[in-house]
Amino acid sequence: MKIDLNSDLGESLGAWRMGDDAAMLKLVSSANVACGFHAGDAAGILQTLKEAQRNGVTVGAHVAYRDLVGFGRRNMDVASEDLVADVIYQIGALQGLAAAAGTRVRYVKPHGALYNTIAHDARQARDVIKAMLAVDSSLVLVALAGSPLIGWARDAGLRTVAEAFADRGYMPDGSLVSRREKGAVLHDAEAVAARMLRLVSEGVVADVNGNDVRIQADSICVHGDSPGAVEMARSVRERLQAAGVEIASFVADTAQAAG
Amino acid sequence: MKIDLNSDLGESLGAWRMGDDAAMLKLVSSANVACGFHAGDAAGILQTLKEAQRNGVTVGAHVAYRDLVGFGRRNMDVASEDLVADVIYQIGALQGLAAAAGTRVRYVKPHGALYNTIAHDARQARDVIKAMLAVDSSLVLVALAGSPLIGWARDAGLRTVAEAFADRGYMPDGSLVSRREKGAVLHDAEAVAARMLRLVSEGVVADVNGNDVRIQADSICVHGDSPGAVEMARSVRERLQAAGVEIASFVADTAQAAG
Amino acid sequence: MKIDLNSDLGESLGAWRMGDDAAMLKLVSSANVACGFHAGDAAGILQTLKEAQRNGVTVGAHVAYRDLVGFGRRNMDVASEDLVADVIYQIGALQGLAAAAGTRVRYVKPHGALYNTIAHDARQARDVIKAMLAVDSSLVLVALAGSPLIGWARDAGLRTVAEAFADRGYMPDGSLVSRREKGAVLHDAEAVAARMLRLVSEGVVADVNGNDVRIQADSICVHGDSPGAVEMARSVRERLQAAGVEIASFVADTAQAAG
Amino acid sequence: MKIDLNSDLGESLGAWRMGDDAAMLKLVSSANVACGFHAGDAAGILQTLKEAQRNGVTVGAHVAYRDLVGFGRRNMDVASEDLVADVIYQIGALQGLAAAAGTRVRYVKPHGALYNTIAHDARQARDVIKAMLAVDSSLVLVALAGSPLIGWARDAGLRTVAEAFADRGYMPDGSLVSRREKGAVLHDAEAVAARMLRLVSEGVVADVNGNDVRIQADSICVHGDSPGAVEMARSVRERLQAAGVEIASFVADTAQAAG
Repeated sequence: MKIDLNSDLGESLGAWRMGDDAAMLKLVSSANVACGFHAGDAAGILQTLKEAQRNGVTVGAHVAYRDLVGFGRRNMDVASEDLVADVIYQIGALQGLAAAAGTRVRYVKPHGALYNTIAHDARQARDVIKAMLAVDSSLVLVALAGSPLIGWARDAGLRTVAEAFADRGYMPDGSLVSRREKGAVLHDAEAVAARMLRLVSEGVVADVNGNDVRIQADSICVHGDSPGAVEMARSVRERLQAAGVEIASFVADTAQAAG
Repeated sequence: MKIDLNSDLGESLGAWRMGDDAAMLKLVSSANVACGFHAGDAAGILQTLKEAQRNGVTVGAHVAYRDLVGFGRRNMDVASEDLVADVIYQIGALQGLAAAAGTRVRYVKPHGALYNTIAHDARQARDVIKAMLAVDSSLVLVALAGSPLIGWARDAGLRTVAEAFADRGYMPDGSLVSRREKGAVLHDAEAVAARMLRLVSEGVVADVNGNDVRIQADSICVHGDSPGAVEMARSVRERLQAAGVEIASFVADTAQAAG
Repeated sequence: MKIDLNSDLGESLGAWRMGDDAAMLKLVSSANVACGFHAGDAAGILQTLKEAQRNGVTVGAHVAYRDLVGFGRRNMDVASEDLVADVIYQIGALQGLAAAAGTRVRYVKPHGALYNTIAHDARQARDVIKAMLAVDSSLVLVALAGSPLIGWARDAGLRTVAEAFADRGYMPDGSLVSRREKGAVLHDAEAVAARMLRLVSEGVVADVNGNDVRIQADSICVHGDSPGAVEMARSVRERLQAAGVEIASFVADTAQAAG
Repeated sequence: MKIDLNSDLGESLGAWRMGDDAAMLKLVSSANVACGFHAGDAAGILQTLKEAQRNGVTVGAHVAYRDLVGFGRRNMDVASEDLVADVIYQIGALQGLAAAAGTRVRYVKPHGALYNTIAHDARQARDVIKAMLAVDSSLVLVALAGSPLIGWARDAGLRTVAEAFADRGYMPDGSLVSRREKGAVLHDAEAVAARMLRLVSEGVVADVNGNDVRIQADSICVHGDSPGAVEMARSVRERLQAAGVEIASFVADTAQAAG
């Protein structure tokens, strides 16, 4: 058994710190690195990339809407011409910095409002897919397990990886509990770790009603922006490893390094 | 005889237009394309790159300080860690967009205040050189003819190309007349064209006192941000071509396309 | 008979020019001045305000979403806490610059996507109204004629002014023809001027089907971002004045200056 | 005996937190509030202003160069026309938010690189002074004790307040020890408190050599961007109060509230 752990990193900005990238890069196998549109200045991104390279962690582009003040969490009605080019720009910028750090960008995981929008919005999904194909068709798209995006991307020729969220509640249909509802976010590190072990070993999690729901995921997203989050990530990793699950990137040639 | 003509392009920003890239891309052999820090949004940059590709024009990264409102013309005391990463970020972003446009970034020409600063400031010059080497050591650095930057870059292993400015006055020592002084900018398209022919054929221009000064340059910068500028660029190109000078990029494999 | 003419001004940004503010400020009675979120740098805004003051033109705050690259034309899902504060910030900034220019901010006219959104979206409308009341309850809100926003603002205690658009087509219900449809924008300056005279003198315009539709408006928006736009504004102004209509701000004490 | 304590606040940006404004606003008598150019989004600034109002803390505009990524700490060669307008814009924006918070902007304390530059650069100093006079001539300028700026501002008709830095070392001539030198920053809260008591009661501090140097200051800057900084501010405040020194704003009518 094998699973990827991914986390959002490189999200500091100049004098403002966010998260503990050094700690998280010892726990995850994939780093979703900010590209400067929702977070991240070039020097901070480069430092995170170097740290990822040293730890054998696979690097992905955490592309977003251009919205620093809103941290890329606000829905924006971006025209296709702009969205395609904005995504290419961000991937390219990260590729440049990754080359300088001795590593490579292997996948794309959109951030925040863009992530949520393209999970179901065909137009913006197509724009992101088009951008990825235009710059490097070997890039993998990490997308919400169960979302139509996965089919759209595969049909367009992209490799996709479905992800589950370690600390989020699930609805009976396998979708996430809305953040406006009770049970959206789970806080008990042990319980979260146990859920993720079931997900990996049995392919199910308990939904909000306590019934099993089937989730097909090859990666688990663990949050990294607080000390508690580091603890939860560590808990998930250790529980999985204790049960014999290998923590490894979904990209073959960097997998061994993170094991 | 052969010379490169370069111009600053891709400098529109969203709703704001600047210059006539389509017209200039029929006249020059090298396009210094904005990278988003002093000018250029991703969609506009991509369009300019596609137009450059169609016209066989070589593409360079017009990297700058992060200063949209000041158009990259204001001196900024940027720390080395930031400057190195900012330049890599910009080159990478342009590489991504260039790949999407079916072309490649072949050189770097810093913009505005960064251009002027690194012509003589060893610390910031070293930062830009380091950035170029980190992302792609085959990138050519276009630098002010006669500036110490050329030696620094060569010593670091970069190929360099020295450039002259078509419409700028020169001092007896080969430096540019300061923009605060009389004679800094020349406006007569015919006179400018004649000067550039002498530069290419004899290696000299007349300085502010009317004496010849020797300028070693393999590229001529023509400005592109006004209708008059397009006329001047055309005048220079036609005068040179009429005298049998080939207009061609300093990068071998794209040279034929712009002839 | 009396009507206000308003136009969007102060929309240059650093090196990028937009519109001909000096020409427009001789034609309109009210200037919707950009506040830096969708357009406008402080020095350019200040210059436009000084020119408005010299011409006796009333000044309004053209507040917008924070989106320079999208020119404030992209819908953004901004939280109320942010939207209220962003609008206050922009009004305050313009008040400061207006004081320095010897004039005052007398009204608010939201820009672009924010304008369109609050015309019908009660939540964001309430946020803008709240912001205006918080900073200066004597500010007038200029809003789309016939939109529910007008009632919401009046109920909250704001004075409102309804505006019509000189160069836009109207639907039978008095709403604007969508920009995606034929007939959305009118280009014949003479025809536009004649329409506006009917609007002022009879309170009607011809809709897309050629039938009269009643529009209650105390201000007419004329666009100012192209030479053709200046001509159209002049045409509207002259036609109205020739028919004895006074062009004057809806704010009493600055009215005489623009006559 | 009476002294003002001031601190830099409102420096969070969207999702990025900085400092503990709520804690600091219980300790200081004056809040230098960010205006959005080096730090601060409008909603966060408004919240800090409301908290300042509730605590009776006097509000000042912490104006800066437009440089979020560099946190306003990088020297920038901003033209006078821009600097004047940028400072007015920031003061105005803060005035608007302050009005919404039920308080007023009473002083200006430039931030970071702008603070350091105008302490000795006559041109940029004049620009800041001109901006203050243009928007509200009753604004007080808080400036480095002993700097020529104080004389320039007074000559121009501004009221000035000289400030000392609680945690900075002093040279024999009363200037600050450069941050590049040993002894630039003091870390012992008790020692710092004792120094500040001597400053207030005797008008002297020990310089880097241990000799007394005379410092005329009516305000003491305490930093607020870390838990340790809160402790140091509390230590200074309590030591001063225990010795009978009143902590009060230099602006008369808000003084009582902070005592």
